[in-house]
Amino acid sequence: MPTTTELTHHTYGKTAVRLLRLDRSRAAHEIFEVWVETRLEGDFAEAYDGDNSRVLATDTQRNTVYALARTRPFANAEELGLLLARHFVETQPQVERATISITERPWARLGEAPDAFVGAGEQRRTARVVVDSGGELVWSGVRDLLIMKTGRSGFSGFPRDPFTTLPEVDDRILATRLDVEWQLASSTVDFGHVRAAVEPALLAAFVDHNSLSVQHTLKAMGEAALAASPELDEIHLVMPNKHYLLANLTPFGLDNPNVVFIPTDEPAGRIEGRLKKL
Amino acid sequence: MPTTTELTHHTYGKTAVRLLRLDRSRAAHEIFEVWVETRLEGDFAEAYDGDNSRVLATDTQRNTVYALARTRPFANAEELGLLLARHFVETQPQVERATISITERPWARLGEAPDAFVGAGEQRRTARVVVDSGGELVWSGVRDLLIMKTGRSGFSGFPRDPFTTLPEVDDRILATRLDVEWQLASSTVDFGHVRAAVEPALLAAFVDHNSLSVQHTLKAMGEAALAASPELDEIHLVMPNKHYLLANLTPFGLDNPNVVFIPTDEPAGRIEGRLKKL
Amino acid sequence: MPTTTELTHHTYGKTAVRLLRLDRSRAAHEIFEVWVETRLEGDFAEAYDGDNSRVLATDTQRNTVYALARTRPFANAEELGLLLARHFVETQPQVERATISITERPWARLGEAPDAFVGAGEQRRTARVVVDSGGELVWSGVRDLLIMKTGRSGFSGFPRDPFTTLPEVDDRILATRLDVEWQLASSTVDFGHVRAAVEPALLAAFVDHNSLSVQHTLKAMGEAALAASPELDEIHLVMPNKHYLLANLTPFGLDNPNVVFIPTDEPAGRIEGRLKKL
Amino acid sequence: MPTTTELTHHTYGKTAVRLLRLDRSRAAHEIFEVWVETRLEGDFAEAYDGDNSRVLATDTQRNTVYALARTRPFANAEELGLLLARHFVETQPQVERATISITERPWARLGEAPDAFVGAGEQRRTARVVVDSGGELVWSGVRDLLIMKTGRSGFSGFPRDPFTTLPEVDDRILATRLDVEWQLASSTVDFGHVRAAVEPALLAAFVDHNSLSVQHTLKAMGEAALAASPELDEIHLVMPNKHYLLANLTPFGLDNPNVVFIPTDEPAGRIEGRLKKL
Repeated sequence: MPTTTELTHHTYGKTAVRLLRLDRSRAAHEIFEVWVETRLEGDFAEAYDGDNSRVLATDTQRNTVYALARTRPFANAEELGLLLARHFVETQPQVERATISITERPWARLGEAPDAFVGAGEQRRTARVVVDSGGELVWSGVRDLLIMKTGRSGFSGFPRDPFTTLPEVDDRILATRLDVEWQLASSTVDFGHVRAAVEPALLAAFVDHNSLSVQHTLKAMGEAALAASPELDEIHLVMPNKHYLLANLTPFGLDNPNVVFIPTDEPAGRIEGRLKKL
Repeated sequence: MPTTTELTHHTYGKTAVRLLRLDRSRAAHEIFEVWVETRLEGDFAEAYDGDNSRVLATDTQRNTVYALARTRPFANAEELGLLLARHFVETQPQVERATISITERPWARLGEAPDAFVGAGEQRRTARVVVDSGGELVWSGVRDLLIMKTGRSGFSGFPRDPFTTLPEVDDRILATRLDVEWQLASSTVDFGHVRAAVEPALLAAFVDHNSLSVQHTLKAMGEAALAASPELDEIHLVMPNKHYLLANLTPFGLDNPNVVFIPTDEPAGRIEGRLKKL
Repeated sequence: MPTTTELTHHTYGKTAVRLLRLDRSRAAHEIFEVWVETRLEGDFAEAYDGDNSRVLATDTQRNTVYALARTRPFANAEELGLLLARHFVETQPQVERATISITERPWARLGEAPDAFVGAGEQRRTARVVVDSGGELVWSGVRDLLIMKTGRSGFSGFPRDPFTTLPEVDDRILATRLDVEWQLASSTVDFGHVRAAVEPALLAAFVDHNSLSVQHTLKAMGEAALAASPELDEIHLVMPNKHYLLANLTPFGLDNPNVVFIPTDEPAGRIEGRLKKL
Repeated sequence: MPTTTELTHHTYGKTAVRLLRLDRSRAAHEIFEVWVETRLEGDFAEAYDGDNSRVLATDTQRNTVYALARTRPFANAEELGLLLARHFVETQPQVERATISITERPWARLGEAPDAFVGAGEQRRTARVVVDSGGELVWSGVRDLLIMKTGRSGFSGFPRDPFTTLPEVDDRILATRLDVEWQLASSTVDFGHVRAAVEPALLAAFVDHNSLSVQHTLKAMGEAALAASPELDEIHLVMPNKHYLLANLTPFGLDNPNVVFIPTDEPAGRIEGRLKKL
């Protein structure tokens, strides 16, 4: 007896479409470098049976990124995402939802020159736009932002089961590679303006906080971000606990009053939380 | 006026807990090497206000992986995942759901020796287990499995909009780095037995298929997998289209009848589908 | 007073030129996938003062890879390397030395089909060819070959200074990610034939050896390789010691008779040796 | 007839020893985070025959990094490298040469707080120290420094062979991920002082230069660095040409006056040069 199956979900698109836009319209050049991912959902089930008549090729999706980047103005990744998502939904009737995810590499001006730049860090700006018949959703974010506290951080008062060996400490290094995304109240806000409020608020909260745990600091950061802009309803933070282990120097007859640490990548804690305005 | 916020979702755990179990109980040694990720959900909201009294430390979660791997028998990653997830839910009343994700590096025996091994490929076996009051869910999978067809693959009949330049082809290279996960009918099946049926079925379908698109092949593979085992209800496939571009040699006065290709990593198509038995 | 400087060394070329050659001349297709790096040395000093009249563009070097792969027969990476290196030295008088480094991804046939393939491991074949007025040198190799011994491996008898805490063990896991290169006696040997002798000899020596240290095993492997082929004069092995640490389970009241290990990537030992036939 | 072989070169050590030193002796904390690699050469040939009596364990080498970081003052990676290299040569008679390679992750102060930091870029500082009976050599450097010029850069006048298709351009994007190392005149100079002169000189030369090729700019940068400090005799620069390809928009009826570019990682040019003071 043959198995009867149903295709219950499907989506497709292009990943890692790389783009640099150079703007030389003013004395000082401006550059914008991103990785774009397109993802379409809709009336594509027949493609899975070999009928390509509705399949907008992923190569075409890639071309669209370059063509729109040439012809349409946009101020940031969120606006580019909206342009692209709207384009696919509006021009292709079979597309019911378009999701555009963009990752931006930060560049800073190098010296006084109008035309020289230097990579401005490991962190990336992110934008994620979803357009469908229900409307437009926009998320902004940052990922891979390395931050560290060397004071005012502890972890104690946790339960001890038979497998618990971790000592209680009131003074430890707290380091994370922050991933954070916030949802905008609408798709018509000034995304750059919101970002300019949210990013410093997140960092200031991290700096100012007397941390009793990563969870504790995560919430303080999320609350600060939500308070920093009325255009923000919700925020999602992922904070790996990048452990810096105190080196055990007693075999060498040495003490180690929080001087020598062993940074580690594996394993890592992973703390995650989502906060919403009431 | 202060902003009132709510913590609407939270989870935490340990990532990249690395484990090798060596079994020397028989003449030929057996090894099992994995990366384990634990993730707990439950009554942890107070931790975000600085009360750690219910926070089972992620360090303890790591220790638990090693202790259970020593004391409890298990035949594969799925069974280890179940042991761990049940342990956290059963021993910690505040844990409402435990999710264990495991990635296994394949090793093969090297020669005839009982104690020598060689890495058996870039692909990884995966297992994902969720245990909560609603029951137990188990997913098995494979990721990063490189497969290629050099014949019986084309892509044509797709729509042409103003940004479409892709030529129609009835003979192209099709290559993907397959990620696939299948959900087991229950948590008491023989996971290895199912895997031994599903993996060859996926590959045989890929080999046998006359591909009109990645979507087309994806569905054939999913159907074959579902038909290969009664213990399988659902399967999810992600198939990036790793483009091998035909090199344009006409500037050098040369033809190129599908001989010389340029492999590329960026950009890539990304085709995704989920199939269920009816 | 201005500083007077001299350009004492210079070289340039193209890295990561990706190529797949598909051969459908017989019933069963054959594929060959590589990353090619070209490097030229010679009369290029004027380029560093802005005179490009002798600079064969790196884009041209890339094109040459594709054109020669189309027009010239070759059986393996070593032969492709020789074709390319000779081409640059012979056609460009300013090129005094050409070095071609090639990395090959292994593919295996998937099932019985003539046109389906599966990635055959994380290891890569390597070839390095140097052509200049002094002649032609060819190195063959393998890199990133994961191998492990779970028996017949120890490390003891080493000196103990004030910073030595490592216990002596006569039974430990030995794992490495082997990088090895061997120099061929001439550029006219059958490189595939030599490889077919050397690779199994290396692995057999690893398997058979009662290892007192990584150094000890490295030498046994190198000697076996040199003995396996008269076409081989010299071999260079790099063997990182990928530590699998015995997990300390005593805090949980558990013993651990070489059952549960913690694989680690950082730090790693690194043992290196070069052997020559006398 | 058995093959007679000789071990012609051997070296060993520990890679990726990770260290963070925290200095809280003043109001504002200071952090220093590095990856250390040790490499020893000397009278170790017997180890390759199974005699470990002279093999200072790589685990001991790792421990030494932590112990010396606790007990000995050092101002930068170069000084740490010298401490370690001298230690191995002076305390282990069988060590004839010690090479210490250090990579430093840059951190910047985050806000006004004395105890908060943020990752300061993708680039890394490097130091390499060699100590043997011939004396002490110190190299300082930077790697993975992303820099870009969007003006005053071209490439033309190069020869055209049958495989040359690259157009001549007088206005292109020039981007590189700079790797540079400079040799210090002695091991007693103030390494931080030299670095503070060399790094800005390299960048200023990159900014100021009217680039006719990567080679051209490389030499200008090297000369500027050599001129910036009397403590510098030699400098070695590696400058991959990270191509930003002008997108071809003519199929869409669009021009592209250096507005939309496609960043690429593969392939890349690779230009290298070494300059010495006369």
